[in-house]
Amino acid sequence: MSADPLVPETRVLAIASHVVYGYVGNKMATLVMQLLGCDVAALNTVHFSNHTGYGQFKGTRATAEQITELYEGLCQSHLTDFDVMLSGYAPSAAAVEAVGAIGMDLQRKAEKNPGSFFWVLDPVMGDQGRLYVNDEVVPAYKKIIHHADLILPNQFEAEVLSGTKITSLSTLAAAITAIHATYNIPHVIITSVDISKFTSPSQSTSQSAPKTLTIIGSTTRSDGSPRLFRIDVPALDCYFSGTGDMFAALIVARLREAVFAEDPVLRGTRSWVSPDRVGATDLPLARATVRVLASMHCVLEKTMEERDAELRAVDARGDEGLSEEEKVKRVHLRKSKAAEVRLVRNVGFLREPTVVFEAVEWREEDLPGFSN
Amino acid sequence: MSADPLVPETRVLAIASHVVYGYVGNKMATLVMQLLGCDVAALNTVHFSNHTGYGQFKGTRATAEQITELYEGLCQSHLTDFDVMLSGYAPSAAAVEAVGAIGMDLQRKAEKNPGSFFWVLDPVMGDQGRLYVNDEVVPAYKKIIHHADLILPNQFEAEVLSGTKITSLSTLAAAITAIHATYNIPHVIITSVDISKFTSPSQSTSQSAPKTLTIIGSTTRSDGSPRLFRIDVPALDCYFSGTGDMFAALIVARLREAVFAEDPVLRGTRSWVSPDRVGATDLPLARATVRVLASMHCVLEKTMEERDAELRAVDARGDEGLSEEEKVKRVHLRKSKAAEVRLVRNVGFLREPTVVFEAVEWREEDLPGFSN
Repeated sequence: MSADPLVPETRVLAIASHVVYGYVGNKMATLVMQLLGCDVAALNTVHFSNHTGYGQFKGTRATAEQITELYEGLCQSHLTDFDVMLSGYAPSAAAVEAVGAIGMDLQRKAEKNPGSFFWVLDPVMGDQGRLYVNDEVVPAYKKIIHHADLILPNQFEAEVLSGTKITSLSTLAAAITAIHATYNIPHVIITSVDISKFTSPSQSTSQSAPKTLTIIGSTTRSDGSPRLFRIDVPALDCYFSGTGDMFAALIVARLREAVFAEDPVLRGTRSWVSPDRVGATDLPLARATVRVLASMHCVLEKTMEERDAELRAVDARGDEGLSEEEKVKRVHLRKSKAAEVRLVRNVGFLREPTVVFEAVEWREEDLPGFSN
Repeated sequence: MSADPLVPETRVLAIASHVVYGYVGNKMATLVMQLLGCDVAALNTVHFSNHTGYGQFKGTRATAEQITELYEGLCQSHLTDFDVMLSGYAPSAAAVEAVGAIGMDLQRKAEKNPGSFFWVLDPVMGDQGRLYVNDEVVPAYKKIIHHADLILPNQFEAEVLSGTKITSLSTLAAAITAIHATYNIPHVIITSVDISKFTSPSQSTSQSAPKTLTIIGSTTRSDGSPRLFRIDVPALDCYFSGTGDMFAALIVARLREAVFAEDPVLRGTRSWVSPDRVGATDLPLARATVRVLASMHCVLEKTMEERDAELRAVDARGDEGLSEEEKVKRVHLRKSKAAEVRLVRNVGFLREPTVVFEAVEWREEDLPGFSN
């Protein structure tokens, strides 16, 4: 009866953080996948009042043992028939290991049916040049990543994983090549790169041009070489929390949709790796990413409008008695709240975005200064 | 852009249990309210792998202190502008008290704006004649209920709260009258009554008739007397977990919708109590309940179909080596899993149900043997 445009039926185990208020981690990812028609089991790694971007929060973190115990609860009642696992923030190295063990166990359970289980791993470690997890979390991720099917590092996390400082298109390509090779991982998306900050003389981006974010993805060929695609999207002038989680949730739904739109052989192929003849922009990963970014752009643009309206409507008269420091804090809290992504009333944009982006192929040999 | 039929914008604080797999407690309530367009903050009182109806589960309970701390986290960042609070299962008497304190604090914050905050309380204590909480939980609920605006006991909980054994229509009416009076609570819905089990000679329900569930609701008049309405719905031949949570979530959304459809004076009236001239079946509570039950009937009927298909498709060959006891357990686990309410792909039924039920007025003086 429902005319809703849903993705193919998908049972997901989502492991990430929970916040009471707002939309980050599993609170974001679970809802986004549900709104696209996925059945989501949500295993929460922290229980916080709100996201950490507010500058203050209360709550508790799950221990590695608690994470493992919840999974054992699923196992003992035979509730593990997941098509996809999406793993995000884990609050300690031991928790990362516990999540890794869950992914590996689900893989083992599915090993007789190639392609029947797919693990999307978001290696949440830091952003903008700094780690926001303990140092021990990095090696913990490095140990489990080669078991995943798709990883979603941001630019900084890609640097950490590849050991390559990304300062140009060629170092970016080198980082992806290194990630494929080092971790034997078939699919990678670097979820946001600010190419305008690259110093390469070949870049023509002028400082006055509208800011663009670049998303780079790749699926390996059978010889391990990358098939790189690139999508440029207009950057919005606002910092939103939870966009990484939104991207991850959308890619789960859209990648499965894209794979189901292909020859049925693909979904029975380990890690859904397309045959070598498929070009970069025809990859299900590229088709999915294009759709993901369109949905994100529409929802975030709408969020920005609503944020601005909310901030204009603020009655700050109550702030008068506050100290300067308290006023600054109050303004930050208001801005953080106003920038919470608006999902529930923008489902239409999520499902059927009104913008179209395009993936372009990106051949390594075209890159200035790229050497294999 | 979205043509989705959503309820008026509603910010809800939902306090209930979380399960990784399946749909009960906050996992059910949060999604249902979100799918109808509500913005939901979810404060989870337990973190379990699955609902207890499976007969086994793993996980942890939040302490009263942890519940309070999460709410303090919201307060310190000014994230408490809720229109509605929905409180469900709390795992201890102290947790019930903590939830009560949150409800009262939100009421206090809203006291200058009558009608701007509404508390729906589901006094989760037991069912089918037995408590499934500690004995101390009962007095804890009795202490906080008079602060709520609407309570949603099932038949057993209504008996516990009213001190009246419900064995007939007249004892049912007496229980509701007692609940209104004892707890000074303006709105009550008894969410399921099996009238076929009543022994009153005036009942004409024959044993062979299709089984019916009866839902009774009431909003007080200004003199404290009940305005009773009754809705009969066909009972489905399946036990689903989480239907109480589904009812509660739907009534939050639909009651707000019904109140917003009235004269704007009502939504500025404390507890949204309609003027005395409004008859029982014209109450927003009655209009909302009718819609809630229609959505539930459609989604549960669909769930039953899908449950049956899932059970027919079971490959039980793996059970051959099991003992009889293990086989029985395995069958129970399969049935529990198959009966998980199917929400994400039946949103259309949730939003625009295809059946229509009717509320009828139910006057106390018409009841056999009823005495005031």
